[in-house]
Amino acid sequence: MNQLSPLDQHRKAYSPKRPSALSQGIERVRIRTGEATESIRDLDAIRASFPKTYGMPLLSFEAGVSTGASKPLRVGVVLSGGQAPGGHNVIAGLFDSIRALHAESALYGFIGGPGGLEKGQYELIGSEKMDAYRNTGGFDIIGSGRTKLETPEQFDRCIEVIRGLQLDAVVIIGGDDSNTNAAILAEYLLGKGLRTCVVGIPKTIDGDLKNARIPTSFGFDTAVKTYSELIGNIARDARSARKYWHFIKLMGRSASHITLEAGLQTRANVTLISEEIEEKKQSLDKVVESVCHSVKARAAQGRDYGVVLVPEGLVEFIPSIKSLIAEVNDLLAEKEKEFAGLPSTETKIQTLAGWLKPESALTFKLLPGAIQAQLLLDRDPHGNVQVSLIETEKLLSEMVNAKLKKDPEYRGKFTPQHHFFGYEGRAAAPSNFDADYCYSLGCAATVLIRDGKTGYMASVRNLSQGVENWEAGGVPITMLFNMESRHGKLKPVIQKALVELKGPAFGELAKHRSAWEVEDAYLYPGPIQYFGPADICDAITKTLTLEKG
Amino acid sequence: MNQLSPLDQHRKAYSPKRPSALSQGIERVRIRTGEATESIRDLDAIRASFPKTYGMPLLSFEAGVSTGASKPLRVGVVLSGGQAPGGHNVIAGLFDSIRALHAESALYGFIGGPGGLEKGQYELIGSEKMDAYRNTGGFDIIGSGRTKLETPEQFDRCIEVIRGLQLDAVVIIGGDDSNTNAAILAEYLLGKGLRTCVVGIPKTIDGDLKNARIPTSFGFDTAVKTYSELIGNIARDARSARKYWHFIKLMGRSASHITLEAGLQTRANVTLISEEIEEKKQSLDKVVESVCHSVKARAAQGRDYGVVLVPEGLVEFIPSIKSLIAEVNDLLAEKEKEFAGLPSTETKIQTLAGWLKPESALTFKLLPGAIQAQLLLDRDPHGNVQVSLIETEKLLSEMVNAKLKKDPEYRGKFTPQHHFFGYEGRAAAPSNFDADYCYSLGCAATVLIRDGKTGYMASVRNLSQGVENWEAGGVPITMLFNMESRHGKLKPVIQKALVELKGPAFGELAKHRSAWEVEDAYLYPGPIQYFGPADICDAITKTLTLEKG
Repeated sequence: MNQLSPLDQHRKAYSPKRPSALSQGIERVRIRTGEATESIRDLDAIRASFPKTYGMPLLSFEAGVSTGASKPLRVGVVLSGGQAPGGHNVIAGLFDSIRALHAESALYGFIGGPGGLEKGQYELIGSEKMDAYRNTGGFDIIGSGRTKLETPEQFDRCIEVIRGLQLDAVVIIGGDDSNTNAAILAEYLLGKGLRTCVVGIPKTIDGDLKNARIPTSFGFDTAVKTYSELIGNIARDARSARKYWHFIKLMGRSASHITLEAGLQTRANVTLISEEIEEKKQSLDKVVESVCHSVKARAAQGRDYGVVLVPEGLVEFIPSIKSLIAEVNDLLAEKEKEFAGLPSTETKIQTLAGWLKPESALTFKLLPGAIQAQLLLDRDPHGNVQVSLIETEKLLSEMVNAKLKKDPEYRGKFTPQHHFFGYEGRAAAPSNFDADYCYSLGCAATVLIRDGKTGYMASVRNLSQGVENWEAGGVPITMLFNMESRHGKLKPVIQKALVELKGPAFGELAKHRSAWEVEDAYLYPGPIQYFGPADICDAITKTLTLEKG
Repeated sequence: MNQLSPLDQHRKAYSPKRPSALSQGIERVRIRTGEATESIRDLDAIRASFPKTYGMPLLSFEAGVSTGASKPLRVGVVLSGGQAPGGHNVIAGLFDSIRALHAESALYGFIGGPGGLEKGQYELIGSEKMDAYRNTGGFDIIGSGRTKLETPEQFDRCIEVIRGLQLDAVVIIGGDDSNTNAAILAEYLLGKGLRTCVVGIPKTIDGDLKNARIPTSFGFDTAVKTYSELIGNIARDARSARKYWHFIKLMGRSASHITLEAGLQTRANVTLISEEIEEKKQSLDKVVESVCHSVKARAAQGRDYGVVLVPEGLVEFIPSIKSLIAEVNDLLAEKEKEFAGLPSTETKIQTLAGWLKPESALTFKLLPGAIQAQLLLDRDPHGNVQVSLIETEKLLSEMVNAKLKKDPEYRGKFTPQHHFFGYEGRAAAPSNFDADYCYSLGCAATVLIRDGKTGYMASVRNLSQGVENWEAGGVPITMLFNMESRHGKLKPVIQKALVELKGPAFGELAKHRSAWEVEDAYLYPGPIQYFGPADICDAITKTLTLEKG
């Protein structure tokens, strides 16, 4: 075991707050059955795929009288996909609550993600180990992994393991893909006559796993607060030095929740939202123009500095770039050998430009040389462009620079700096909010397991009203489903919750951004605080506040 | 004025702690005169340059009886160079203490750095403005700048301004260059018969402005804690995901104090120290080899992940690269036109390789293509290679990758990620330590001014012993001087305090690094805390602890 830092040392002693229904003894929690549910869309297709678990009712928890002695529960837990702050606290909540129900309950951690469940690699989690990980960041207690459990063969191997360990439940802590597969596994187990429950926990810093009953995924709070600390510091530096424009890319391929929240927390000059760019079918040039607008307006006031927030997935939402990337992928697959034989990067760029259809060729020629090279050279094992490696923050600043140089009205000085924040926040120690929320989710999962509920995600809502008023319960996972094309085939999957352009969080940005892009309206949130005034330590995100989560 | 974040709101109310000699009323502080001082080296040359201020005694402060009513003090203050957390608190300490001496004292802030003093651009700082900036990061209260005041013509313009405002003192908050020039200005003013004091304040996040009497420069504490928070988070992410090697470059061109301290705070697997590389005359290949050593040892234990800390100035300390850069600068100046006429980057690289002397050509050919291109293309206005733009973190990871590929014993998987942290910490809100230290420095400056001491740096030492035992005083700036070549001419300047390879901080790294490079010995310091347990909130750096600052 590692030596602990002083902060980790003190955080070990933090006792997560829980909603009142969960804080009076897990054995006393009563489940109230609510309305039956439907999927978001494609009801018939999804009902057909989930004959046993479709349409189950919403569940809410309330404090009741003791339901009597419980049998010992045997539970397996899996951490799936990218780290999110608070994962260890979900496990701590599970651990404490199953043992509160019965001292002989056992928690098995599957090692290295879903692959550990499939291969039967596990560890019985003991008190000492659990205590060392309470309120800490990371997924290192048992490790995580990206294996997708989706085929019957894989499920059958899982069944072997589940039977071997006589598990009452498997808890899958993951994002939309992992919860999609959790629902499929739940259905599969029932089909095989197994009574083992599968319970999902909504995890992802991206914030795109939510619905009306699941106000946020865990980890979003801590990760965005960490990024906002850094963005605020950079904004203050920019305002002090008065000479740099900082282009800051933020993690989040699919949805721009992180960028939106960070923009609201720091009031950056420009906050780009992929969903808006797609909705308005903006060209790359148009996006560049919108940044130039701020640079010019600020330069006119003597402010040759600023902060631009860029969502990681931006280029994939720009229709012209999306087509260009698709065309490049096809061309390089088709002409692989011919292309590989070209003598230099510059020749490759010129040759490719000649192969492209006129519209894509135009888009391609507008890109800075370094980005053109990235499109050609950095390919994934399937030969495709690695969109995540495209340095969008540099792409934008170079194109802004080029545009400004041609602008006779612009007399400022434009010097960009570039940043990408992602890994800095995914494994941060959870904020009090995430520590509390995750621990509560772990306890809520136990209630579902206790009563044999499968195919549910544990949920805690009413998060903007103080922990004692939080409402715990369960949401049928199929409620979040729709049909989407995967490798050319329609499949039932959880729909990603993108930024709603009609929602209150985007509305807040839209309301203020014309002021923020000119003025120094920066807020400096500072680092996450674990001790001290509640308005700092227990603050929730702007998104959650505005959405009245 | 900006709206304040909740943290800034609460921090406004923070009352900085002060050493006992300064906390019982500035009018009661008695100055005790210590030993006369000498420069570090080149005593005769420096004595000759500073006939009036050389060899002045050390000063220490103690609580005494009231020295009676003071006259109102008129003080100007300048923020010089890069931001460092706590600058606003130096100004707050000055502001409060000169007004404590006399209610009619006035503090003038020169706008935009030393240039504001030269041009007479200033602002009378009032209570309301001052209050808004207490315990905040950044230098935006009056702005900073990089103008160097060093010529008699500049000094004469400063004298005009000083006379116009009838200043009793000018306080210069800056790094080694700015304090060098503060000492020269002090001498110059005395030579002109002016009684205006010049007082320096040791500022720089780099930590390279210190001596036996000045244990640390302000800002180092907060900046390194901010970087260490991020490095710790990344280490935890690496350990959870088990698939990335993170190469993290840290600000600090000249000295590696930041990297060393961050290495001690987080126990990264590899912490490169420029001073050691120079001392041992290591080649780039040797440095790469030292990283490979850790990668291979960890891969042998199934750990295909890790964290490498790289000081920003690294390449300038590698003798072969240093000569290469010098040669490239000369060649491109000499053959400017011919070079500009070459058709492509690839031709330029090949042609340059042919021009270089054999040894430099060999070094050049070893560099990855992207870095070769950076050497040729990114030139500063004088036509020189912009060393600060060289992406050393990528240079290293690419060379490590190339070396590993040739190594038959290595069977791991090496996937690097890159980060550069600098702007994230320079303008962070000061830690309690920096808030207290800076405020105390501001108060100490007032005592020096009150008693007409010029050519001194305000000092607070004994910093590892709790604030009440801190010892305030003054250090003659010339004590830090030696002669160094500047543009081919020997000049008296403050010697940069580099990492001492025989010092206790480096010793601590040297003692543990063979373990840390293999094991997961990471510590996760977490974000700076302003409230809560003193062992977290008031913690000092490892460097200061080990050096018994």
